[in-house]
Amino acid sequence: MWLPSSSNLIVTSRVVVQKYGGSSLANETLIRRVATRIRDRHRTDPSLVVAVSAMGDTTDELLALAQRLAGDTRPHPREADALVSTGELVSASLVAITLRGLGIPAVSLSGRQAGIRTDTTYGSARIANVNTKRVTRELNAGNVVVVAGFQGLTETDDTTTLGRGASDLTAVALAAALSAKVCEVYTDVDGIFTADPNLVPNARVLRYIGYNEMLEMASLGAKMNPRSIEVAAVNNVNLRILSSFNPDSTGSLISATPSEDEDMEIDRPITAVTTERHVGRIVLRGIDNRPGTAAAIMMPLAEAGVSVDVIVQNVSESGLASLAFTVSSGDLANAMQLVRERSGVQFRAVDAEDGFAKVSIVGTGMVNAPGFAARTFKALADADVNIEMITTSEIRITCIVRHEDLSTAANALHAAFGLGDS
Amino acid sequence: MWLPSSSNLIVTSRVVVQKYGGSSLANETLIRRVATRIRDRHRTDPSLVVAVSAMGDTTDELLALAQRLAGDTRPHPREADALVSTGELVSASLVAITLRGLGIPAVSLSGRQAGIRTDTTYGSARIANVNTKRVTRELNAGNVVVVAGFQGLTETDDTTTLGRGASDLTAVALAAALSAKVCEVYTDVDGIFTADPNLVPNARVLRYIGYNEMLEMASLGAKMNPRSIEVAAVNNVNLRILSSFNPDSTGSLISATPSEDEDMEIDRPITAVTTERHVGRIVLRGIDNRPGTAAAIMMPLAEAGVSVDVIVQNVSESGLASLAFTVSSGDLANAMQLVRERSGVQFRAVDAEDGFAKVSIVGTGMVNAPGFAARTFKALADADVNIEMITTSEIRITCIVRHEDLSTAANALHAAFGLGDS
Repeated sequence: MWLPSSSNLIVTSRVVVQKYGGSSLANETLIRRVATRIRDRHRTDPSLVVAVSAMGDTTDELLALAQRLAGDTRPHPREADALVSTGELVSASLVAITLRGLGIPAVSLSGRQAGIRTDTTYGSARIANVNTKRVTRELNAGNVVVVAGFQGLTETDDTTTLGRGASDLTAVALAAALSAKVCEVYTDVDGIFTADPNLVPNARVLRYIGYNEMLEMASLGAKMNPRSIEVAAVNNVNLRILSSFNPDSTGSLISATPSEDEDMEIDRPITAVTTERHVGRIVLRGIDNRPGTAAAIMMPLAEAGVSVDVIVQNVSESGLASLAFTVSSGDLANAMQLVRERSGVQFRAVDAEDGFAKVSIVGTGMVNAPGFAARTFKALADADVNIEMITTSEIRITCIVRHEDLSTAANALHAAFGLGDS
Repeated sequence: MWLPSSSNLIVTSRVVVQKYGGSSLANETLIRRVATRIRDRHRTDPSLVVAVSAMGDTTDELLALAQRLAGDTRPHPREADALVSTGELVSASLVAITLRGLGIPAVSLSGRQAGIRTDTTYGSARIANVNTKRVTRELNAGNVVVVAGFQGLTETDDTTTLGRGASDLTAVALAAALSAKVCEVYTDVDGIFTADPNLVPNARVLRYIGYNEMLEMASLGAKMNPRSIEVAAVNNVNLRILSSFNPDSTGSLISATPSEDEDMEIDRPITAVTTERHVGRIVLRGIDNRPGTAAAIMMPLAEAGVSVDVIVQNVSESGLASLAFTVSSGDLANAMQLVRERSGVQFRAVDAEDGFAKVSIVGTGMVNAPGFAARTFKALADADVNIEMITTSEIRITCIVRHEDLSTAANALHAAFGLGDS
């Protein structure tokens, strides 16, 4: 949607896009390290566009300050965006200043100057299009172009932000619009892992992962903005997730097809185990099973901004239905109150319980291949883990388990599908 | 120059422009206080435009960070401007957020959005014109318009800053372009004083001061951006200097003519005594007195950005000239080296000496009225203060004295011209 019409032909340019996150730019030492890395890359790839996040916790600190000053109200969304977008302006100009100090011609651009045009959904604006005129002119003038991530401009000339973690999205959108040969996302981890290494000691970095798998993983807790993956997939952008702290890591390639170096992995049907903590569950029993019941329960939650995750409904022997769904632990009390007071649905009993976790296997290899669900349930049973809820997509099987079983469950699945083997 | 053509007719609008400096916005408590004051003023003057500086020492801190990251080079001027201009964006949106929390409709605008267009002299850009379309639209929509001071946009779509202290200039330029009825500059002092109250205990706040006198005083150390005064004078903007810490102060009016309340003061021929510390002096003796000599001495200093103040030249008995000039103490060593190595002028001896100060009397009453110089010199002689150098303008007499004599000199002149009497 933001591509100039000509680029439906997939023509790859010489442009390399990099993105550095806030933890990679948290202080002067780290900014110097990033600038040195950009300088080195500039020798081999002079057409370099770099999207940056705000330094460290700047965004959170600015939002907290705004909240204190707004008193009992929420900070006005347009003003909050005008405020927090300054964090990326600061890091963009600091990186450009550091590069110039190293003798590398560089120019910083705001999201506006970089041609990022959005709708007016302040706080989570959608990119409408990218006008690459200025970026291209600066590249042609020999400059490294450092773009403030996370932000854009509306048609009414106001600054928007694209949502938390959306500097990734800036980088991917620029890579798409410039037909970049690669979009490198630098983070504080070595890449996309087969599982959370804090839970599963022999988790490995994946050398290659497809867009659809990454999309499932991003929505399952991997540190990557899900919209960035969507945009990369639609526009066929080669994404590489790398560590800014480990120069030797080759990271993980997210792409439609593996590159030549990465192709040995595609036979593995399951790509990764993903995990999520702090899950709460609400169960409604004895519901009249009529059209519109589930919607009546979910609408007040959606209106209150409570994100509902796994939803399971079934019919009990009495003919009445029961409905269970999960929310994050922090939303549990609020969700319970909304269900009781606002849903307008008759039910016999409702329970809220905290202390769950979510474990999933993800992999395109399970499409049209039977037996993965059975293998999942057997692996968990063998590890003595009780499954509380189950939900599946084409390339994912998710189980809700007790929080205390999460580590056991993750390790069991990681082993059962051979993910630790290199 | 930035007025729409129609406003050569002096038509005053209902608009009030206010400006709050960094010390008035240094923390959350002060931002709340400023917002409360704006809310109160909004009741009587709903067409309110507020220009703000960066919070406290933000600008200095950002520049210091940029300097550290630039290494041995100076931070690139375009990038330094992109960086430091964020400070005013932050305070503008925070003030708007606080106002909205108080129930006052408010919108923050960057210098760009407020239509401030400049040349490309990064770091001290000159305003080319002000397009008030957006500001007027927001005022008509009922919003208090909070404008980030100190910044503008070039024709090539890049952010510039207008020079240190130039948020005043933003306020005055907006007041001129909007034909505001008054431009109120809130500071950390009660107004423009007859002398520095730290030196002269019975110094008073002036209720009225003319543009020309203020211009002399601004360049003599009063805390006001001199270009702001020029712009106010050219466009006939009524400027009022007020304390943001003392709600009861009526401050000082800077205007072409005093208002009805202020007219009792215009009989006083001398308006104020101004003082400046940290003055160094360089004396060159035995110079060939030829055309171009003074220029040859001053050019290298100008090129190196050393600001030369009082310049006195005379011819000694030998027929050779001597030239003395003052610079700020911090520039003295550098200036001495430039004169020795780069001027290319022959001289017999050169001396640099630190430890001077500058004391001046300012007042339009001395135009075409003889005797003020004589009274100045007598007052200083009676106080046993030796005069090292003298320079005068139409409405100013300046003496360079030893630093240790400054307080004595200032009090003597303040008393001699009756400035302490109310």
